[in-house]
Amino acid sequence: MLTPPDPATLLIADMGARARAAALVLAQTPTTQKAAALRAGAAAIRASAAEILAASAMDVAAGEKNGLSGAMLDRLRVDAARLEGIAASVEDVTALPDPVGQVIDQSERPNGLKLSRVRVPLGVIGIIYESRPNVTVDAGVLALMSGNAAILRGGSEAINTSQALHKALVAGITSVGLPADAIQLVQDTDRAIVGAMLKAAGLIDIIVPRGGKTLVARVQDEARVPVLAHLDGICHTYIDRAADPEKAVKLAVNAKMRRTGICGATETLLIDTAYADPKPILSALIETGCEVRGDAGICALDPRVVPAGPADWDTEYLDAILSVALVNGVEGSLAHIATHSSHHTDAIITEDAATAEHFLNVVDSAIVMWNASTQFADGGEFGLGAEIGIATGRLHARGPVALEGLTTYKWLVRGTGQARP
Amino acid sequence: MLTPPDPATLLIADMGARARAAALVLAQTPTTQKAAALRAGAAAIRASAAEILAASAMDVAAGEKNGLSGAMLDRLRVDAARLEGIAASVEDVTALPDPVGQVIDQSERPNGLKLSRVRVPLGVIGIIYESRPNVTVDAGVLALMSGNAAILRGGSEAINTSQALHKALVAGITSVGLPADAIQLVQDTDRAIVGAMLKAAGLIDIIVPRGGKTLVARVQDEARVPVLAHLDGICHTYIDRAADPEKAVKLAVNAKMRRTGICGATETLLIDTAYADPKPILSALIETGCEVRGDAGICALDPRVVPAGPADWDTEYLDAILSVALVNGVEGSLAHIATHSSHHTDAIITEDAATAEHFLNVVDSAIVMWNASTQFADGGEFGLGAEIGIATGRLHARGPVALEGLTTYKWLVRGTGQARP
Repeated sequence: MLTPPDPATLLIADMGARARAAALVLAQTPTTQKAAALRAGAAAIRASAAEILAASAMDVAAGEKNGLSGAMLDRLRVDAARLEGIAASVEDVTALPDPVGQVIDQSERPNGLKLSRVRVPLGVIGIIYESRPNVTVDAGVLALMSGNAAILRGGSEAINTSQALHKALVAGITSVGLPADAIQLVQDTDRAIVGAMLKAAGLIDIIVPRGGKTLVARVQDEARVPVLAHLDGICHTYIDRAADPEKAVKLAVNAKMRRTGICGATETLLIDTAYADPKPILSALIETGCEVRGDAGICALDPRVVPAGPADWDTEYLDAILSVALVNGVEGSLAHIATHSSHHTDAIITEDAATAEHFLNVVDSAIVMWNASTQFADGGEFGLGAEIGIATGRLHARGPVALEGLTTYKWLVRGTGQARP
Repeated sequence: MLTPPDPATLLIADMGARARAAALVLAQTPTTQKAAALRAGAAAIRASAAEILAASAMDVAAGEKNGLSGAMLDRLRVDAARLEGIAASVEDVTALPDPVGQVIDQSERPNGLKLSRVRVPLGVIGIIYESRPNVTVDAGVLALMSGNAAILRGGSEAINTSQALHKALVAGITSVGLPADAIQLVQDTDRAIVGAMLKAAGLIDIIVPRGGKTLVARVQDEARVPVLAHLDGICHTYIDRAADPEKAVKLAVNAKMRRTGICGATETLLIDTAYADPKPILSALIETGCEVRGDAGICALDPRVVPAGPADWDTEYLDAILSVALVNGVEGSLAHIATHSSHHTDAIITEDAATAEHFLNVVDSAIVMWNASTQFADGGEFGLGAEIGIATGRLHARGPVALEGLTTYKWLVRGTGQARP
């Protein structure tokens, strides 16, 4: 006996079919028309400012009533300045190079067949995110510019704001003749819909979760659809014996303290036992307000250092806390990183080019840096324009994922009547 | 209460850990040493001929006793000529360009950071295949040449032959100082081990199933590890109104009849209603021994045509059977292909370049061809050397997968002390 599908599955089946139809149109849409759609979307967002700000006020009021934290309330608040930022970021995406149609490589075979690999959109992108209404726009816009249809499912706390932003964006898209289903927003806040999206293999080609560890872990655990994401950003900065002391201090402080809550923030500092004087690094960190948790060697250097426990080497603090260990040269740093890194971003500070190249070669992370702050781990900083996320998996795309990461390719074979012998 | 892990899970955990350790070595192994390992492996296979042929004789005798079909027995038979073919194919792989270390692209940011994306191995490849002992060698060798460790699980009917081939290959690999765990073969024929491999996320980075539809469907259904594969090869050839009649006949016959059992064989022929004379195509097919199943319009053209049922348009015959339909021009072919193609390989035959480019642009398959036989859908024919398989999924790699498809990339960032503002 067959049990009838549940409402969430039926909803996603319907949205998925409409997304696929829209994706077929978007795949053939020229760059100029996609850009025109986005400019119209930005204009519609500006024109709908009153409606969007009123929706945000509703969400904020409901959030206050439900006892959301100040940080949560701040995330879902859209004021006039943020609205303009959102509209401007839509316009920024129109200036990015369109990956669709790019020829990756080409060759001619001895039998005269001409081969080329050409970028095409992935198809249907599912984005599951928390209560940041700007993701509704950012993710939808990146999907559209790369020729994909999007199914967006945002957090319930920001649903009114997301709906208002989505409505404006769709008005812009349809005004240039593109399908309204290009960017669909799940209007229902039932959590079962997330589960249905995660199981929608064949309907959704890839899921991008945007949010905290609980959300990403659930998505990675339950998904039957491929996922582009990172769970942790346990990033390391290694200060080599040949580090310039001034750069060492500046980069250690910046890598940890510029913004402590981002995934590219350094969580563990490794210092070469042969590095001349680690004390100024510890002092600078502590005096910038960082709690330093050290191994025995580090504790001996500064009485303000707190002893680190075993869990500290595997902890993403996302806060003004840093674990610091002495390691035996670059090989010691490589061993520590191989054991504890989450393969997001790891950096070496040294003036010795050979040591740096060895570190760059051996460390197996999405991003490996030499004499730079791990806080640069960001699609915008990499020149990719916006990013839909950072991936630490090994398949398809690694590191910051932007327009190119939302495409695949096909092989084109042009012949003159060749039969295979 | 925790239940202890089952033996299959423990076995794969152990093999996975050893594979990961070997992968770290292989990732840093220069091309010349990988090539030397493979040449030594080929030599060891030749030197072990007596042992390998004896193992094959054991497998064939057991297969005969167990009533395997002639085709199955033929697949697992290794004679002197096939052994030489296997050894030579190992040497062929050493001539392919090593993707590891290739710079995909590079840029410099306004702040002076130098970015590059560099290819690195995927890590650990799991290959699950049926009783074709040559896959033991082919898959292991492609994994090693691309810097990956391999865990091979072959069909039980060929276990003695696979073990003998694997033993020789490993002797060659270790003779040049590479780890024996670079290529591991599951020695136990317990089917639970396949299940353990499919669930080994974090231990195995990608699974490549090689075999029939039942195997691939099981793998795609159960896997928690990403899979590169294709389930069906429902390939189409469309004869446009502007097709050259001679090419139309030649390519229709070659695309179906050259080898009917391969995934690139055409299973459905679509003929433009405006094509002048389809009869010679039907005659040539029928006279080459092909059963033609046609729609009403095709049936009316030749009394030897059998009426097609609804299932025929979604059937991969892998046999001398072809479904043939009339369609209304290139748009009719695109609509049929969008509905029925398995997104493997589809071709157009026409002398009209604009129509051809429209078809190449719109058809959303891994391989799209113009005036060529779909039977060319093969890594060797594409100049990739050997192939580990053909993928019809949209993520990571599409079409023939060879050395490059077994790599990922990392971002290298070279700075001079930049902190992020």
